[in-house]
Amino acid sequence: MALRFPNLPPSGPQGSELLTHERSQTTFSVHEVTKYLYGEEFLERRERLLNIVENEPALEKETRFYDGRTERFAHALRKDHRMVQLSKEHKWSAEEFMMADSLVEEPGPFGLHRGMFIPTLVSQGNEEQHEKFLKPALRYEIIGCYAQTELGHGSNVQGIETTATYVPETDEFEIHTPYLTASKWWIGGLGVAANHAVVMARLITNGKDHGPHAFCLPIRSMEDHTLLPGVMAGDIGPKFGFNTTDNGCMWFDHYRVPRICLLSKYSSVKPGSGEYVNPPNSKLSYGTMVLIRASLVGAACLATSKAATIATRYSAIRRQFVDKDKPLKVDNKVVETPVLDYSMQQYRLFPIIAQAYAFVFTSKEMMRLYYLNIKHMAKGDFSLLADVHASSSGLKSLTTTMAAAAIEECRRACGGHGFSSFSGLPLLFQDYVPNVTWEGDNYMITQQTGRYLFKSFRDLVAKRTKGKMSAAAVTNPTLAYLNTYLENSNLKCPAQTASDFYNPEIQLAAFGHRAAYLVAQIVHALDVEKRTWNSMQVDIYNASVAHCQFILVQNFILGIRGEMEQPEGMAPVEKLSGSAKEAMKDLSDLFALHLIHKQPGEFLLSGYLDAKQVNLMGQAIMTLMETKIRKNAVGYVDAFGHSDYYLNSALGRYDGKVYEAYTEMATKEPINATQVVKGYEQYIKPFTNPHGKKGRSMAARL
Amino acid sequence: MALRFPNLPPSGPQGSELLTHERSQTTFSVHEVTKYLYGEEFLERRERLLNIVENEPALEKETRFYDGRTERFAHALRKDHRMVQLSKEHKWSAEEFMMADSLVEEPGPFGLHRGMFIPTLVSQGNEEQHEKFLKPALRYEIIGCYAQTELGHGSNVQGIETTATYVPETDEFEIHTPYLTASKWWIGGLGVAANHAVVMARLITNGKDHGPHAFCLPIRSMEDHTLLPGVMAGDIGPKFGFNTTDNGCMWFDHYRVPRICLLSKYSSVKPGSGEYVNPPNSKLSYGTMVLIRASLVGAACLATSKAATIATRYSAIRRQFVDKDKPLKVDNKVVETPVLDYSMQQYRLFPIIAQAYAFVFTSKEMMRLYYLNIKHMAKGDFSLLADVHASSSGLKSLTTTMAAAAIEECRRACGGHGFSSFSGLPLLFQDYVPNVTWEGDNYMITQQTGRYLFKSFRDLVAKRTKGKMSAAAVTNPTLAYLNTYLENSNLKCPAQTASDFYNPEIQLAAFGHRAAYLVAQIVHALDVEKRTWNSMQVDIYNASVAHCQFILVQNFILGIRGEMEQPEGMAPVEKLSGSAKEAMKDLSDLFALHLIHKQPGEFLLSGYLDAKQVNLMGQAIMTLMETKIRKNAVGYVDAFGHSDYYLNSALGRYDGKVYEAYTEMATKEPINATQVVKGYEQYIKPFTNPHGKKGRSMAARL
Repeated sequence: MALRFPNLPPSGPQGSELLTHERSQTTFSVHEVTKYLYGEEFLERRERLLNIVENEPALEKETRFYDGRTERFAHALRKDHRMVQLSKEHKWSAEEFMMADSLVEEPGPFGLHRGMFIPTLVSQGNEEQHEKFLKPALRYEIIGCYAQTELGHGSNVQGIETTATYVPETDEFEIHTPYLTASKWWIGGLGVAANHAVVMARLITNGKDHGPHAFCLPIRSMEDHTLLPGVMAGDIGPKFGFNTTDNGCMWFDHYRVPRICLLSKYSSVKPGSGEYVNPPNSKLSYGTMVLIRASLVGAACLATSKAATIATRYSAIRRQFVDKDKPLKVDNKVVETPVLDYSMQQYRLFPIIAQAYAFVFTSKEMMRLYYLNIKHMAKGDFSLLADVHASSSGLKSLTTTMAAAAIEECRRACGGHGFSSFSGLPLLFQDYVPNVTWEGDNYMITQQTGRYLFKSFRDLVAKRTKGKMSAAAVTNPTLAYLNTYLENSNLKCPAQTASDFYNPEIQLAAFGHRAAYLVAQIVHALDVEKRTWNSMQVDIYNASVAHCQFILVQNFILGIRGEMEQPEGMAPVEKLSGSAKEAMKDLSDLFALHLIHKQPGEFLLSGYLDAKQVNLMGQAIMTLMETKIRKNAVGYVDAFGHSDYYLNSALGRYDGKVYEAYTEMATKEPINATQVVKGYEQYIKPFTNPHGKKGRSMAARL
Repeated sequence: MALRFPNLPPSGPQGSELLTHERSQTTFSVHEVTKYLYGEEFLERRERLLNIVENEPALEKETRFYDGRTERFAHALRKDHRMVQLSKEHKWSAEEFMMADSLVEEPGPFGLHRGMFIPTLVSQGNEEQHEKFLKPALRYEIIGCYAQTELGHGSNVQGIETTATYVPETDEFEIHTPYLTASKWWIGGLGVAANHAVVMARLITNGKDHGPHAFCLPIRSMEDHTLLPGVMAGDIGPKFGFNTTDNGCMWFDHYRVPRICLLSKYSSVKPGSGEYVNPPNSKLSYGTMVLIRASLVGAACLATSKAATIATRYSAIRRQFVDKDKPLKVDNKVVETPVLDYSMQQYRLFPIIAQAYAFVFTSKEMMRLYYLNIKHMAKGDFSLLADVHASSSGLKSLTTTMAAAAIEECRRACGGHGFSSFSGLPLLFQDYVPNVTWEGDNYMITQQTGRYLFKSFRDLVAKRTKGKMSAAAVTNPTLAYLNTYLENSNLKCPAQTASDFYNPEIQLAAFGHRAAYLVAQIVHALDVEKRTWNSMQVDIYNASVAHCQFILVQNFILGIRGEMEQPEGMAPVEKLSGSAKEAMKDLSDLFALHLIHKQPGEFLLSGYLDAKQVNLMGQAIMTLMETKIRKNAVGYVDAFGHSDYYLNSALGRYDGKVYEAYTEMATKEPINATQVVKGYEQYIKPFTNPHGKKGRSMAARL
């Protein structure tokens, strides 16, 4: 007999009333902002796809809270299968598929087939390989995975140990796993789903090791899905998150495959002689990495905005204590204050809302630069590559770190209920947080940003020494802030009042000066003090963060003004109306000022800001939050336009019926399927009623 | 047919060799430090209990990685049952039980029975109630829980809505849940295990509401464990962590219980007349809260040291890239550098090791103060209470926040493998992180610390104005740093070289000055500028952090010198030998300096440190880590003395056989029980082999 929980109303004011009140205070048009962020075409597509996915039984989101890993994986396999069917039925484009999949948000066994296997075949396979592998892969006859990392080798691809030795006698490669550390590991989709794999292995021919190359291999039988002889593979077991994906491991035992398995668009091995043919330009391979890192900025935006929506809506409903200086009355009775009215809660949540908006604009800019760079590279122009690569690495690091922190902060800001799975925040964190590690560990990859910044700085110094550089000639924003610093490294911030800090130019100059200061310090330490690179890693990380904060602040400022460059061929953006622009500027101000105020150290160390200014900035923030942002808080998160299906959270519901939904979800907990728990007879009764006495306890005990 | 993964050796150098090498470099006696931290009696007890628990089948730790919530709960119920049996067999004391339970580390359904139900009966029940409830509870005939929080009421106990109305006619209380928001929620052990509950409800008699009081009620039948009429209860569903505990919810429908259910040691209701008898001193109830918060400092230490052990050992084994300035050679061949040699990794992990040590000493000091205060209060002396309450609140907030951050940082510092459940770190984080929310939300409770600091500051100013205060007369350390600041608020740090910062007095003075500066600023804002309390919450939080960092730094300095006060009646601590003391002082230096260097803002704002000094401090930290702490890193974590059973981590193993253990654990993943996954026929084959063709793929495809 399953338990039935009572159907009681919460005490007033009701969540729905509170959210209605919040929405009535919004000073801007939510729809206008939503449209500005995403564009109408995107919104129309999202709405259309949402209608399809939210009504599909295979794509329901409720059971994920209750199921163990085995059931969750089975669910994801069923979902991935259904998604492929839907995409065929509705003739989805790749973009539509990705968007629909991101609404369902259940990383499944076919995810890497689309995300890495197919793109690698496209970019590294030759025409024959496109026929043989790519075409059937697009039809899902082949299901693939991308096997790069090994048990002992993550970030350092050059260190992988799996070998592919060319055997001229049979014109084959022998794929082999020499050590346990060479086991392929973490490979999404390999655990049980894939029948093919792109395997990164050291290409050895004529006794020479040419380093890691990509091979496309069959690993499971097309007939019955059993492992092919010479291949062992399985699932690597449970993880913090991503448990709906079968991350797998794989070993090769002198496994022979024909020469065509070496993906040969760029490098190849000549039949018989085994002569190695070099790739034309190794820089070409940066493209995919930049794309993935740039796209992670967009994913960071989604994750941040989702968490912010849940926590902000719930904080407007959740009430705790009475603010003694300003007690809230409903029907002449003092009621507890919504936690969103407390300045601490505002200081925790509002900068996160602002962060999500900041990420929107930088995400757009990174995608524009990516496509521009691809276009340039196709013409043999590599001038943009270094900047785009550096920014995408640093921004991947900064935005994913900030997004993961934001989710956890939002979770904690929901109080105890943020710990319940039904808040939606635990699973969001667990599935999001690998972003800080994969595609380049967030500490590691900032060295790539650093290298670019130091080189830019040195080049600039050299040019200035030779008198080749005028301030006006510097158009690249990174070079511009470095140049300004070199003009005068003792510049002071001109702000004298709290409201001076609402000037975007003043904000941006502070970020530029601080980033340039850090770069200058490091270059001095490396070049003059001859410090080792290793000993400077912490400073390099900080410089990358500073540079990327500058980019985020700058794009936010330009983005709300409609002054960001548009991708070639796109119509210029329509400008925001006055009220919407003002509301956006409040967030842009908060984003910039909060970043400084929360960690003012480097701004003070650089000498650009002084103690009095940091204190004024604190006032500017508190005034902004209390008088302007507070009343728009729910409006801001509504403008992200996340549906209840997407949020999948009892606390983040649009209608505010949080406690009703939460209780309803608790009734479905499998443990509640019976009133008396299964282990009672064996593990409780021997203590509480060892002799099986009859008679109700009340009478007996009291 | 279950999969068998190959039995290969990792490529060299082996983990075991690397750890042996690390251990050979340690400059101090690991055993001496372990003994100093814990005392011999503690170590002997831990060893003895470990031998019992690690050999009990019901207490195994492997299945927790693979099981879903239902199975994990069943496991925990079995474990709790077995623990009670073991405690009876071995005649464990309450302390021994707690220690054994903490080795097993599986929060189960009987945890709150011991942790809250029994202690509440002890402290708030009268003699009759001890007979009726406490004695059977100690024998586990009664199994109880502690039902305070409600769906709509967490931190604010005064806001709870459940009512207990005295009915004079029958000399009973009627317990009732008026609204959904009054549902008891989050109650550990209530979901399925408890047959009794201590319920906090508003005591109403003769129409007057006397606020929340504790009642002890039967909720499930002693005969068959079914819910009693008038009571509905169940499990609240899955959570981020703590899924082995049945956190429950409960509703009362005009549920009648006799008057004896009101726990009446302090307040009571007279039979018939219903007259309410006041508690003698409301301050007495602070005792338990202080004890719990103080004990959470010890728990923060355990969690931090556990995570640090896993991440540090694994970082000595995990190798990535080659440090070009200083390549590592084994057998004349360049091998990848252990990540522990990178300064970024050191900057991430070494302060966490130091943090764990810092927590040891402050945890001891808080427990000493708790018992001293209890002794004083029993004599009617409440002079210590305010300080202990303020410190325990602020330290609970700071240390649990730091510990949660440390676990997650350690997890990420293990690279991708930190994401695997087998690292032990995901579950550690998930089960630990509620500490930041429960027993007083970490942002909320710092206001209590703030109130005490501001009052102390105002009192001190008043006394100084009246000329009643001489610097020598101030013995309380909080007052001492406030007084020093009032003597001269423009004091500057005297350090002029990097090595000056290795002077503990210089470190401590910086923390004192900064904390006093923040307190002075807030008192000025509140008292002179008349700012509202709400508008100052962020500053108040920062002041509490600053105060508690001062305490942590001070206790660390005194602790390694053997200069901390000992609990009354305890022998003075034996001093550390020179080499051990030096190794400890390195950590103490790092702890203090890293706290400043990572967030120097307030130290700079207070005017005590300048930019040049912060840069010198950076040098002091890097030198310390590279030349002194690096070689002791594994020794430091070994000295925590955590057994492999306790760590339960493939990466943190004492013997360094991490990849072997990890692979072995992966083979046990339930998904690997069959070679071809269950859903293959239904969800994969329709794409890959729709017509059931025969013949191996290799031949067909290639």
